[in-house]
Amino acid sequence: MSVVTITTDFGIADYASGLLQGVVWGIAPGADIVVLSHDIPRHDVHSGALLLERSMPYFPPDTVHIMVVDPGVGTQRRGIAARLGSQYFVGPDNGLITRALRRCSQQQEPVYIVHLNKPEYWNKDVSNVFHGRDIFAPVGAYLSNGIPLKELGDEITNPTLFDLPSPIQHLNGITGQIITVDHFGNLSTNVRGEQTSGINKLRIMVGDRTIHNLTKTFGNGQPGDLVAVYDSSGYLAICVVNGNAAQTLGLACGDEVSVIWDDEHL
Amino acid sequence: MSVVTITTDFGIADYASGLLQGVVWGIAPGADIVVLSHDIPRHDVHSGALLLERSMPYFPPDTVHIMVVDPGVGTQRRGIAARLGSQYFVGPDNGLITRALRRCSQQQEPVYIVHLNKPEYWNKDVSNVFHGRDIFAPVGAYLSNGIPLKELGDEITNPTLFDLPSPIQHLNGITGQIITVDHFGNLSTNVRGEQTSGINKLRIMVGDRTIHNLTKTFGNGQPGDLVAVYDSSGYLAICVVNGNAAQTLGLACGDEVSVIWDDEHL
Amino acid sequence: MSVVTITTDFGIADYASGLLQGVVWGIAPGADIVVLSHDIPRHDVHSGALLLERSMPYFPPDTVHIMVVDPGVGTQRRGIAARLGSQYFVGPDNGLITRALRRCSQQQEPVYIVHLNKPEYWNKDVSNVFHGRDIFAPVGAYLSNGIPLKELGDEITNPTLFDLPSPIQHLNGITGQIITVDHFGNLSTNVRGEQTSGINKLRIMVGDRTIHNLTKTFGNGQPGDLVAVYDSSGYLAICVVNGNAAQTLGLACGDEVSVIWDDEHL
Repeated sequence: MSVVTITTDFGIADYASGLLQGVVWGIAPGADIVVLSHDIPRHDVHSGALLLERSMPYFPPDTVHIMVVDPGVGTQRRGIAARLGSQYFVGPDNGLITRALRRCSQQQEPVYIVHLNKPEYWNKDVSNVFHGRDIFAPVGAYLSNGIPLKELGDEITNPTLFDLPSPIQHLNGITGQIITVDHFGNLSTNVRGEQTSGINKLRIMVGDRTIHNLTKTFGNGQPGDLVAVYDSSGYLAICVVNGNAAQTLGLACGDEVSVIWDDEHL
Repeated sequence: MSVVTITTDFGIADYASGLLQGVVWGIAPGADIVVLSHDIPRHDVHSGALLLERSMPYFPPDTVHIMVVDPGVGTQRRGIAARLGSQYFVGPDNGLITRALRRCSQQQEPVYIVHLNKPEYWNKDVSNVFHGRDIFAPVGAYLSNGIPLKELGDEITNPTLFDLPSPIQHLNGITGQIITVDHFGNLSTNVRGEQTSGINKLRIMVGDRTIHNLTKTFGNGQPGDLVAVYDSSGYLAICVVNGNAAQTLGLACGDEVSVIWDDEHL
Repeated sequence: MSVVTITTDFGIADYASGLLQGVVWGIAPGADIVVLSHDIPRHDVHSGALLLERSMPYFPPDTVHIMVVDPGVGTQRRGIAARLGSQYFVGPDNGLITRALRRCSQQQEPVYIVHLNKPEYWNKDVSNVFHGRDIFAPVGAYLSNGIPLKELGDEITNPTLFDLPSPIQHLNGITGQIITVDHFGNLSTNVRGEQTSGINKLRIMVGDRTIHNLTKTFGNGQPGDLVAVYDSSGYLAICVVNGNAAQTLGLACGDEVSVIWDDEHL
């Protein structure tokens, strides 16, 4: 049985989240299950998509990621299961796979998506308001048991995806966007480390502040310092040492960050 | 070894909750353990009882539910373990089993309850303030290992139960109560779907608002709409689409909800 | 494979915490993993040290405790793994083992500490800002698999430790400090039960309040009563029944608590 992850926007006070584990164990007894997060902001498909992309490299092959961030539950939106490289996704067809899918395309990894339309793999009774429990958890458990994806539904090639902003390259720099704010208020961007490598002297402009050069890690600055580092996924991030950059700068997802290179030879 | 669930009102910042898993694994190595909730409101036995009733249908036979919502720890209140249909409960005798027990009676499922009075199945040292760790977790682990219930204590037939409000049937409707408010502010009632089935035209009166007819799912309304749906356990629930009904209506557990049927033939 | 515990200050909204489990399972498939807490106050090494000390007695031999409370990540601070009695610690060398180490000394249990300087036991790419994922989780997984500690790094004998305040014994009493505040606002001190045993009549002075004698458990007082009990680890604790002592008294970690014995024969 392969590892199963569960991600929801249910919060932790409700019993709903634990139920998903019960349903998985009913079908795949003893499967290793980990909760990635129950605190995705409500209905925030973009946060879910980012979590999926960044988690996958750290899970074993055949891991099944069940994601229940599902504002359209019970409407015409489809349920899907997908092979994304070496791992599986199960959840609503609302864009949650957008980033993981792009990663697979870039790395030429296999993708195969099915519309969950085989009720024999669901709970007997399906609530209109809780497909996580009645469709996605059982389907994820069958995948963990080794049931092939094509048994679970018919192939589709038109999954719902959302637009992903890309950084814009300039003559002497690059302008990207903040794409996530973590627990500590650190602001991660969509500018990858590779895009600034080889540059010895650079400025980062964010809000009305300018940061000179990159820092290796938080602990190299003084408490309160505004620093730029590569985050743990290799993206440019803006942080306040021992502080909260999002609050200090008043910035949020979507706001721009520019990197200007000042190397003489450019 | 059977599945073990853990539910507490400890919150997640304390180490106390994780200790219970350590104690279970010390006795039942490798048992599958899931935390249903560590955020039951403090001392809220009613919330715990509802969570138990609604979770049980989704767990495999012989699952052991350890519940530590225990304002009377260390006093004369008894500790109990109970067979409730195909599953087990372990915790204080303070009403936590009230709803699950009623369900068992209605469905004519077996019930057998023992007073935990055999210290050979407890931790060697028992704290007066943490029976969850020192009595309920070890007893739950022994149950998971297959030790029979009757080894763990003497049978009792007078468990502590609390009164459960029942909806009142009228000539042309039914009046129930709000019994839980979830993470999203949705208000679930004690009016079951069956009690309104076959009615084509109905009004729901809640606070000073009237809702006309039921909606299949949240996503069928517009953001901000006040709607009535069947929740994932089959009960009538009042919701604001993408909003918080509890806040919008200023309502809480115990408040009344009336369903009036307007079918001509009635 | 031995049990693995994970403790962090990441909070629960980020995906970071779940990644650690994925990394462990990649190396030690099927290992039993429990999250002790993801809500250690940010960078609070003292809270982490207390959690470690108090958790260890309730976990099976060979349990591996991975702790990521790591303000100095990526700086010169070392990563360490340690045998502490019958169990293991993996994390930064910043004092997290202080209390567990003292306990081992007092109980004459074996201690062996290594500096994690063997990258062959780490992830291939090591982020400067997330050694939890890239060093501590893999090392913990190898320990769970039975790799000997001495393979993972060179022995050190100078771990970073912080000073631990000790209660001061007086002629007719003892003065200690509050060392932790739990989820319910209960104030635990560093005064052990043994230090007040055999005393029949005592007063506890805390803030500007005096408590007469000890209570067996919360439930023996009336709601709102200020009481003193032994907490679940055997330390003197100050509590408000059904209330929050920290808020009521305006006290926090480090504040003093005095116990005065009034026995006639003293």
